[in-house]
Amino acid sequence: MSRRRLRLGAFMRPVSIHTAAWRYPGAFPDANFNLQHLVRFAKALEAARFDAFFMADHQAVLNMPIQALKRSATVTSFDPMTLLPALAMVTEHLGLIATASTTYNEPWHIARKFASLDHVSNGRAGWNVVTSGNPAEAQNFGREEHWEHAARYRRAHEFIDVVEGLWDSWADDAFIRDVDQGVYFDPEKMHVLGHKGEHFSVRGPLNVARPVQGWPVIVQAGASDDGRQLAAETAEMIFAAGGPIEEARSFYADVKARTAKAGRNPDHLLVMPGCFVVVGESEAEARDKRALLDSRVHYDSAIASLSVALGTDASRFDPDAPLPEEIPETNASKSGRERAIGIARRENLTVCQLAQRLGGYAGAAMVGTPAQIADQMQEWLETGACDGFNMMFPYLPEGLDDFCQKVVPELQRRGLHRTEYEGRTLRENLGLPRPANRFFS
Amino acid sequence: MSRRRLRLGAFMRPVSIHTAAWRYPGAFPDANFNLQHLVRFAKALEAARFDAFFMADHQAVLNMPIQALKRSATVTSFDPMTLLPALAMVTEHLGLIATASTTYNEPWHIARKFASLDHVSNGRAGWNVVTSGNPAEAQNFGREEHWEHAARYRRAHEFIDVVEGLWDSWADDAFIRDVDQGVYFDPEKMHVLGHKGEHFSVRGPLNVARPVQGWPVIVQAGASDDGRQLAAETAEMIFAAGGPIEEARSFYADVKARTAKAGRNPDHLLVMPGCFVVVGESEAEARDKRALLDSRVHYDSAIASLSVALGTDASRFDPDAPLPEEIPETNASKSGRERAIGIARRENLTVCQLAQRLGGYAGAAMVGTPAQIADQMQEWLETGACDGFNMMFPYLPEGLDDFCQKVVPELQRRGLHRTEYEGRTLRENLGLPRPANRFFS
Repeated sequence: MSRRRLRLGAFMRPVSIHTAAWRYPGAFPDANFNLQHLVRFAKALEAARFDAFFMADHQAVLNMPIQALKRSATVTSFDPMTLLPALAMVTEHLGLIATASTTYNEPWHIARKFASLDHVSNGRAGWNVVTSGNPAEAQNFGREEHWEHAARYRRAHEFIDVVEGLWDSWADDAFIRDVDQGVYFDPEKMHVLGHKGEHFSVRGPLNVARPVQGWPVIVQAGASDDGRQLAAETAEMIFAAGGPIEEARSFYADVKARTAKAGRNPDHLLVMPGCFVVVGESEAEARDKRALLDSRVHYDSAIASLSVALGTDASRFDPDAPLPEEIPETNASKSGRERAIGIARRENLTVCQLAQRLGGYAGAAMVGTPAQIADQMQEWLETGACDGFNMMFPYLPEGLDDFCQKVVPELQRRGLHRTEYEGRTLRENLGLPRPANRFFS
Repeated sequence: MSRRRLRLGAFMRPVSIHTAAWRYPGAFPDANFNLQHLVRFAKALEAARFDAFFMADHQAVLNMPIQALKRSATVTSFDPMTLLPALAMVTEHLGLIATASTTYNEPWHIARKFASLDHVSNGRAGWNVVTSGNPAEAQNFGREEHWEHAARYRRAHEFIDVVEGLWDSWADDAFIRDVDQGVYFDPEKMHVLGHKGEHFSVRGPLNVARPVQGWPVIVQAGASDDGRQLAAETAEMIFAAGGPIEEARSFYADVKARTAKAGRNPDHLLVMPGCFVVVGESEAEARDKRALLDSRVHYDSAIASLSVALGTDASRFDPDAPLPEEIPETNASKSGRERAIGIARRENLTVCQLAQRLGGYAGAAMVGTPAQIADQMQEWLETGACDGFNMMFPYLPEGLDDFCQKVVPELQRRGLHRTEYEGRTLRENLGLPRPANRFFS
């Protein structure tokens, strides 16, 4: 029997999660917003046999102080559902996953656009369902206040149900196109949804044929209890937090158990944590690269992030000294505070270095040689911590090229990553079944 | 001085306005919904130096009896804003105009998607603003009743204003990307819209840089008094009805006068009627092609259309006889009734032939040799009836290829159509100015 393989997504909006990526030596400062660069990245990911190009999204410029905002490359970026059809034309196998919110959209538009993307890409679309965590979005859609958490999730449940119902408006063989008889479709194979629920009233049918994949792949990222439950009931991929491996195992076991309890095959919900990766010829070189990257986080942004994490004004500390022993307790998140202090102690960082870590990217990371990184990925896969990863590159193009050219071949040698695509659609490559039509067998 | 030239759009959704296009000998029955065919058409239009590929749209399966609906190729078609980014990748100069409704969308989404399309296509996007004439759309967006006409137009005015304001969120030179200083944009060059109006409250700024064209080209099709006025104040292209040339001249004079009265240069609102065109080696051949096409309209669809036009059950007439002399007056639209009777008398059609004309496409048409068609187009252009046309092909691919390969060269010989694109963007090719930013000079 062949070895179980990693699923690999590339988390590409922003192209790097790291705030200072655009300032790294050799980086494309406009990587997040230059079509030709994005085409290059998509082609490289396909050559490395990635499962998917994954785009996060916000419907707002993020709400942060202008001193930090003006240093952010992510204030301008393409709408994912406009970019991905373009990338579909320059790739053949790479999955194309876009984030779209159930809070500030209508089910009709989402059903139609993802069905269209699935047709345009010949079966490579995925929908990352979010409920919009960013309160700034509300103000771009006529609301002073963001919807509260539970209400967002109730709406999301109904939204997904309506979208899937619209995708099933037509049997797969509805369109007979009988030129002689002048019959374009079989009326028995069209379903009028007629949905009337708490949040939505949608008649249907959708004016797009059933997607190539039946339904585009459903992705979710929520880690809350509501989020895990929604994923267990409806999702096929979870973009999970990268946390320590023990926490990842516990998360993995929890959502797989919830999935089984919901009457689904747990193998049909893939858990793929985010994974920030810095590759070096030696471990020291990788650590130096990361330190150089962190050092490019501007002090203004960095110290603001540290102050938020500690719940106290960190600008009064000596930037070049270690973090003071005594940090006053405040009403800041206790876990965020402890995490920040833990990083500083563990890696022996100065105040400035800690601030730059937090202002850059402080989530879980794999930093080392290709073999070391492959070892870690293998451990995660083989000890029940994940089914694969959504890779996050530290800077572009080098960080992406390092992973594709150095780590991917190592994973392939170990039989942990495909050398050729198995299928034609994203579902086929991910090993996910094509959903039956609710209304037609 | 060079001759004034025609502007040419191609009205491509549905790929043919004619109901029976998919049944014409040699036609692609799935032309409306097959990416490879659409790519072929886009490339042919670019080779013929068309200004734009123009997509209409509905947010519903059209509400018609199933006996007619099942014969319609347009029940399935791509979302325009998903298809056009894909076509942007296989063309370089062709403008890409998509219809989007102000009634069942939010300004944020429209601003973002069209700005993204304009960047992806390097300045070739256009937005055909509609208020949704099709009442069936309401039921896909939680409403039992369609919005009434005047309310739709008030909303449209404010919607366009908000979208343009969002497009101007950033000065053209806002993004300085100063790697050394770590400054991605100049905060003085970001504008927070802060719109609060009757229908919308939108904070901004948009999270996309200003479009390449400043604003995508604004297109409208409304012919009502409200529609003309909205166009005069805000549009740069009107997709007008094709009517008789005298009516077209009167429409042209009216909207140009309204444009001047609104304080705008009338040359910056292009009037481009729809133009259904059937090309033959001889006039007789062209007429035969049209008759063959009309004959492919199924009798069920045809007679339903005739009954609607006459306001009486036309299935009781002898299909192979001329229209009876006496048609009872009813509460059907008088102008529709007179138009139908006029066509039957003028062209000496049987009841069945008239029904098939009405069930196929009964709007203004140019049917003849390349020289005859070029003569008519020239007359329209040179006698103040239009600035160009949005061409409607009778069937695909042949009808499109006939026009591009036979009529276009004739127009080029006469100096009425370009042989090379003048500019890089849709605006440059249409001779439209790049709008100044409202908030930054």
